[in-house]
Amino acid sequence: MALIVQKYGGSSVADVECMRRVARRVKKTRDEGNQVVVVVSAMGDTTDDLIDLAKKINPEPNEREMDALMATGEQVSSTVLTLALHQLGVDAISMTGPQAGIYTDAIHAKAKILDLKPKRLLAQLKKNRVVVVAGFQGLNPSEDIATLGRGGSDTTAVALASSIKADRCQILKDVEGVYTANPRVVPDAQKLDEIVYDEMLELASMGAEVLQSRAVEFAKNHGVVLEVLSSFVEKPGTLVREEVKHMEDMVVRGVASDKNQAKVTIRGLEDKPGVAALLFTELARKSINVDMIVQNVSDKGETDITFTVPRGDLSKTLRVAEAMQSELGAKGIRSDETIAKVSLVGVGMRSHSGVAAKMFEALAKQKINIAMIATSEIKISVVIAQADADKAVQVLHKAFDLGKKK
Amino acid sequence: MALIVQKYGGSSVADVECMRRVARRVKKTRDEGNQVVVVVSAMGDTTDDLIDLAKKINPEPNEREMDALMATGEQVSSTVLTLALHQLGVDAISMTGPQAGIYTDAIHAKAKILDLKPKRLLAQLKKNRVVVVAGFQGLNPSEDIATLGRGGSDTTAVALASSIKADRCQILKDVEGVYTANPRVVPDAQKLDEIVYDEMLELASMGAEVLQSRAVEFAKNHGVVLEVLSSFVEKPGTLVREEVKHMEDMVVRGVASDKNQAKVTIRGLEDKPGVAALLFTELARKSINVDMIVQNVSDKGETDITFTVPRGDLSKTLRVAEAMQSELGAKGIRSDETIAKVSLVGVGMRSHSGVAAKMFEALAKQKINIAMIATSEIKISVVIAQADADKAVQVLHKAFDLGKKK
Repeated sequence: MALIVQKYGGSSVADVECMRRVARRVKKTRDEGNQVVVVVSAMGDTTDDLIDLAKKINPEPNEREMDALMATGEQVSSTVLTLALHQLGVDAISMTGPQAGIYTDAIHAKAKILDLKPKRLLAQLKKNRVVVVAGFQGLNPSEDIATLGRGGSDTTAVALASSIKADRCQILKDVEGVYTANPRVVPDAQKLDEIVYDEMLELASMGAEVLQSRAVEFAKNHGVVLEVLSSFVEKPGTLVREEVKHMEDMVVRGVASDKNQAKVTIRGLEDKPGVAALLFTELARKSINVDMIVQNVSDKGETDITFTVPRGDLSKTLRVAEAMQSELGAKGIRSDETIAKVSLVGVGMRSHSGVAAKMFEALAKQKINIAMIATSEIKISVVIAQADADKAVQVLHKAFDLGKKK
Repeated sequence: MALIVQKYGGSSVADVECMRRVARRVKKTRDEGNQVVVVVSAMGDTTDDLIDLAKKINPEPNEREMDALMATGEQVSSTVLTLALHQLGVDAISMTGPQAGIYTDAIHAKAKILDLKPKRLLAQLKKNRVVVVAGFQGLNPSEDIATLGRGGSDTTAVALASSIKADRCQILKDVEGVYTANPRVVPDAQKLDEIVYDEMLELASMGAEVLQSRAVEFAKNHGVVLEVLSSFVEKPGTLVREEVKHMEDMVVRGVASDKNQAKVTIRGLEDKPGVAALLFTELARKSINVDMIVQNVSDKGETDITFTVPRGDLSKTLRVAEAMQSELGAKGIRSDETIAKVSLVGVGMRSHSGVAAKMFEALAKQKINIAMIATSEIKISVVIAQADADKAVQVLHKAFDLGKKK
């Protein structure tokens, strides 16, 4: 008998029929002899509908009130799923985040979990009940409801799994697991049986949208074994876990692309210490998340700095840069929205050289021009023209032999 | 400066536009120098929608889960109204029932308020904030959310008003107050400036649907001055309060009718002690609310019992009666759904005789036949044919001179 935490996202509990299917899945897990804690997101578009309602009344809604408003979405889905379980004869009880003992810091809308006191939850498990927890929420030091922000339900599931020492935390989604590349781009992309936390983190930050970085980080820090699997099809998914020996055999685990980036170049900067710091400090103050940064070799005491930002932040970024242009002593600002970032990820890279060379060679053969390069211990990323992105992913997937074994 | 509790029902906060209007009304009350606590019901049809959702999943939903589900409706409306107040520049904060310190007993779906600890609420009032409380809910001894059942938001408002020693508890509705008769039936019906708790209780039990009996009883027991007034038109409503001297001058306060009743007659019962008790004990066990009971004078050792029940309970009542027929030694069971109950209410009746005689005479003049009569200290009710109900109300309203003074 294992203790399993299962998390179902909004699209898995979108309507009454989905709720019934999830209930059957939970019942099956339980009938197989497991204890089950379920974490649910709000049903379908509920969260967006609540945001719309609030914004109609008040375009800049107070965050404390928004949190109390939004938290109702998960409270509804937790009770409805519990009723669906009762209907199948499964003894179950719903709990809000606060009832499940989730305590957060004081930051509304993106609260962090500070503490877990799952006493009530454990008492219910002992009574042999399935506990259905409203994800995405907790109680803050003022005893107000606080929400955990984007991906908060994943984080709820991982944090609960850690605190009750669950054997596994399953994240059920509308994909069957983590793949070597996006199967829509690379038809023979392979589902991975296992992946290391750090690789998952690099993929999550690539916008792979499989798991939220926060949840993966929490799992890594607390040694929670995650499994990403389909809520629609019943088969094993991808385990996300600590590195184990044989995992290094696979040098490159996957290829990912991110088309949601823009590139900004500040030209003709005076090449002296502190100039770059001025700019990036200001961008950070404006909560703009700068990803890759490349500085050209100095020429005649001048240099260029090129960096990437999420596309949605481009106009804000340009406003900041233009306002600082004279302070920076820059000669011009250029931007490009038609780019993509393509990355190879794999912990095996740490002990294998030549990955970058092989990557550049494969791209060059297809005449794909590289505009920027950034490397980390387990990732190599290049910025290329967006039009080349899918082809680049296909080429690299093949070059590193990641496709399904025939 | 006064401390005022205002309660707005579901139709007053049905949509975004309604919310804005309520916010303006609250702001005005505050701008006039008052401290304000607002209690809100769920928006429009929210409660019914949530019940429908639950019943689709599970036709006999667990009450604890239903309470957690239903309570979200009021949580949503309390935060949305708070956002609307912010938009008008009013400092306001929402609270759930538990946050407002409302503690209930353990009976889900129709919990009773056991205790109030409005410490947080008073602290917010001290900060000069409007506090918007989600009605209809509290925290039970298991630290679960419990709802107060039908009319629970009225009860929340009255209980809070009592615990924070508010000067007045205003119940804002889609009517302008309590009338001498239904204005749709009697065009010159007069809005009452004042009414006594006991009169209001008799009217509420007549299905006048102005105020819930529970809330009126609570107000009576704790001396909370209630005011029923319109949420749409700004003018004084009807005060519901303790009896004051001059109020006795008005012998009859109003005429009400209830067309939602049915009459059952058990014929040919053996006239011996305990027979009636058997029947009414069983009906009570089935939660059937018997209203008027009349027993005929015994004839040859036999008697008839006639009683009224809410029309919706008639078939359940007949099933009970038929199952008990042989046990009761009854010769037959008859029922009639085409009846109405018409009542005169007024505390002045206590010290004035002749009211009943005048009532019967006025009805007789119009050839309205009386099938049953029941009297209390402050009420006389008759059961008549439903077709005569409106005419009876008009005749009595005129006979007791209750119309608007020209």
